[in-house]
Amino acid sequence: MPGGALRLGELAGELGLVVEGDSEFRVHGVAALEDAGPGDLAFVRSEAHASRAAASGAGAFVAPEGLDLDGRPVLRSGDPGRDFFRAARFILPPERPQPGIHPSAVVDPDARVHETAHVGPHCALGRGASLGAGCVLHAGVRLYDGVEIGADCVLHANCVVAARSVLGERVVLGPGVVIGGSGFGYVGGERGGLQKVYDLGGVRVGDDVEIGANTTVDRGTLGDTCIGRGSKIDNLVQIAHNCMIGENVVILAQVGLAGSTRVEDGAVLLAQAGVAGQLTVGAGAVVGPQSGVHKDVPAGAPVMGTPERSGKAFHRESAALSRLPELIRRVRALEREAGEGEDGE
Amino acid sequence: MPGGALRLGELAGELGLVVEGDSEFRVHGVAALEDAGPGDLAFVRSEAHASRAAASGAGAFVAPEGLDLDGRPVLRSGDPGRDFFRAARFILPPERPQPGIHPSAVVDPDARVHETAHVGPHCALGRGASLGAGCVLHAGVRLYDGVEIGADCVLHANCVVAARSVLGERVVLGPGVVIGGSGFGYVGGERGGLQKVYDLGGVRVGDDVEIGANTTVDRGTLGDTCIGRGSKIDNLVQIAHNCMIGENVVILAQVGLAGSTRVEDGAVLLAQAGVAGQLTVGAGAVVGPQSGVHKDVPAGAPVMGTPERSGKAFHRESAALSRLPELIRRVRALEREAGEGEDGE
Amino acid sequence: MPGGALRLGELAGELGLVVEGDSEFRVHGVAALEDAGPGDLAFVRSEAHASRAAASGAGAFVAPEGLDLDGRPVLRSGDPGRDFFRAARFILPPERPQPGIHPSAVVDPDARVHETAHVGPHCALGRGASLGAGCVLHAGVRLYDGVEIGADCVLHANCVVAARSVLGERVVLGPGVVIGGSGFGYVGGERGGLQKVYDLGGVRVGDDVEIGANTTVDRGTLGDTCIGRGSKIDNLVQIAHNCMIGENVVILAQVGLAGSTRVEDGAVLLAQAGVAGQLTVGAGAVVGPQSGVHKDVPAGAPVMGTPERSGKAFHRESAALSRLPELIRRVRALEREAGEGEDGE
Repeated sequence: MPGGALRLGELAGELGLVVEGDSEFRVHGVAALEDAGPGDLAFVRSEAHASRAAASGAGAFVAPEGLDLDGRPVLRSGDPGRDFFRAARFILPPERPQPGIHPSAVVDPDARVHETAHVGPHCALGRGASLGAGCVLHAGVRLYDGVEIGADCVLHANCVVAARSVLGERVVLGPGVVIGGSGFGYVGGERGGLQKVYDLGGVRVGDDVEIGANTTVDRGTLGDTCIGRGSKIDNLVQIAHNCMIGENVVILAQVGLAGSTRVEDGAVLLAQAGVAGQLTVGAGAVVGPQSGVHKDVPAGAPVMGTPERSGKAFHRESAALSRLPELIRRVRALEREAGEGEDGE
Repeated sequence: MPGGALRLGELAGELGLVVEGDSEFRVHGVAALEDAGPGDLAFVRSEAHASRAAASGAGAFVAPEGLDLDGRPVLRSGDPGRDFFRAARFILPPERPQPGIHPSAVVDPDARVHETAHVGPHCALGRGASLGAGCVLHAGVRLYDGVEIGADCVLHANCVVAARSVLGERVVLGPGVVIGGSGFGYVGGERGGLQKVYDLGGVRVGDDVEIGANTTVDRGTLGDTCIGRGSKIDNLVQIAHNCMIGENVVILAQVGLAGSTRVEDGAVLLAQAGVAGQLTVGAGAVVGPQSGVHKDVPAGAPVMGTPERSGKAFHRESAALSRLPELIRRVRALEREAGEGEDGE
Repeated sequence: MPGGALRLGELAGELGLVVEGDSEFRVHGVAALEDAGPGDLAFVRSEAHASRAAASGAGAFVAPEGLDLDGRPVLRSGDPGRDFFRAARFILPPERPQPGIHPSAVVDPDARVHETAHVGPHCALGRGASLGAGCVLHAGVRLYDGVEIGADCVLHANCVVAARSVLGERVVLGPGVVIGGSGFGYVGGERGGLQKVYDLGGVRVGDDVEIGANTTVDRGTLGDTCIGRGSKIDNLVQIAHNCMIGENVVILAQVGLAGSTRVEDGAVLLAQAGVAGQLTVGAGAVVGPQSGVHKDVPAGAPVMGTPERSGKAFHRESAALSRLPELIRRVRALEREAGEGEDGE
């Protein structure tokens, strides 16, 4: 993957790493070991990959201390994978689209767009919407009336932000994300029907939050749904009305949170887990994949299963379950022996 | 949240409630207890919240009989939450966009748009599509050829309605909803490949149905997929080809229904549940969260788990499972005592 | 459902079937038995439906050998459902939109669009994007810079293809599909925060792949996420960065695959299943609905449950579990008898 040429010594300086070998080497791109050419930087995770590294055509490496690479220049690192991706940002800086509003976009006269923002084709910004400095809206993004987007946000194609929602700075929304859809709240209506609870709240998204493709975050019923600063949310996640997500929370794909769920700072919810409404997942708790949480989860606790229990208990019980059919036979044998074989198996 | 001013007595009349105190009080907005100012109406759910209410800056309340609010005017209600949201609709009536077709929309010359309908920016209406009186299409809605939308529907941004599907009246589709995608049906094709079953049906959606963001409803293979009047469907739900959903059915987020599932009137499917194909969930049945339904569910039954069983059995078995590791040890002890300790644990 | 008229004999020739009765019969449309009129072809799956067939108004049938249909003409078939849908393609050939670029579409001057391709309203094609012969882009499709789409693909409304992804030939993407969203990979950043791993890869989609509505496929971190030729993926599926999906794989709705999952040729993943990262699902394996795969699945194996086990074990253990509460009582009875009733139940 070609980029601009960068001296290896310069790169080492930016990353706070040490070069071994030719620090004048020019890095043109980055690649995996197998795909790398003579102008590319590649990385070697550990000694275990030494032979793959030796066979690689890469011109330079990020590699752990002590790994020999035939004299080719190396950036020494305690975490080569991480430092490789840090290096990639310098070698291949992300392209920023030009500031300006595409002529096919429809921007309400009462919307405010910062002069350094980019508004792509077919975007639509409603009355009173505002878009901060350095923002990028890819094609087809829809901002409803009164939506506020802070500086340096990137909204990918076909996102929708509704309900006077407010995004902080450096928020990234993947394609097709929906922020501020109507909450799923109903009360009994006329003739056995259901009447929507009227939505009055919005969504508040903190700085540095990133949300994956086609995820949905509903607006609050009364008061806002909130996602705290630094939290990262994967694809196809459902966050219901009035959830309160803390800071640096990690939510994997296809997780679902029912209304008014509280997730405290640093908690992690693994893929396809679900949390019933009105519950709290404590700070730093880890909810296992596909778990179904029916009670509050204490801070720091790892839980798993449906209903959830400690991770240790889940694995012990799963193992025990596999022995249950045999156990039934053993109990029957004991009963027979005790002369009580009346169980009509 | 500011709105137009409304006399409290007038509001009471609309809602069929009784005012206690100054019925000339002017309500300007609505808010939660903590956020309310002197022009706002707030609500108190029960006596338990009396001190929060006393501390509130709200000018008026919806509150249960007998709760004292320092002489501030009160609408007395047996269900304050519900009546508060009913009141909100009068105080803050939803804004209706102006009728008319935005110049950036693309409407086929053979499509019919009622003169009172609103078609937002970048909508596209195919040949023979029709849009009823009072409808609102937010930005980026796509109606394929021949789609029919009844009166007073609201389709949020970036919805897609395909496959000559037909929507009744007052249907609401959240942002990113897809109605009429191709059904997932394949037969063996040439050289070990799979050949799509040709889609011939559409989707029929009854009056007053509401569907949440990014939910998908596939078209029928032969004959239509149907969603009955008054049913409410949450976000990210999957409804496969030829499902027959009855009236006033409630389907929570991330539920998945396989092809030709039948859900009878008033059934409730809680979040992340799944129903295998060709099955019937009887009227008024309640399928628990994350349940996996493998057999017909009788009318009125609460079921839970995978495979599903009665809610009572599910909880009893979950509790029993937590005792299983200990039970295995107890059985082993009995066996030892009976001189049969040959189990190689 | 009306179409162009076609002689039954001609149709039989195309499908390699035999006509019994009037081969000059003109087929105008296709329908289910109950809906069919005198110009329609319907199908009878088996003898069990003979009376429904007799009552049908259909003019002609696809039916198994030997089933009597009052002398109305019949195409005899060993698989009437399949041959009926094959017939439908001839009777009602899919409409192809006219070639050309809609004036409301925004096509970068450096994008290449084949002259036989159709680009619908409000599509946006970035710099260096290319669109092959015979492709159809419905309204609102977004192709990011450098995306390549092979011949005869159909991308339904509001799809997004990002990250220089490459699609083969005859690929079909349902409405709202997102290909090439950012992978969910983070490393520890400054001040306890999380830093996105920089995305360098794309997505490669093989020939004849079909992907359902609102499904998301993330781009690779380094190297591409790949979906092999002929694979079929249902709605609302999550495929994480660097997954390697083989050929003719079938993935049902709401399945989630974590990063770097490997699914070999011909494997089937049923609805709502999940696979943890870095694992391999072997060729021809079948992962049951809602299963949670935590270890490699051997080729050809049917697995079920969370954590997954053989289908046989899953059903045996589920049945055993329902007997567990009673088993606990039986063990207690044995203990009492043995004079050890100290369990404080």
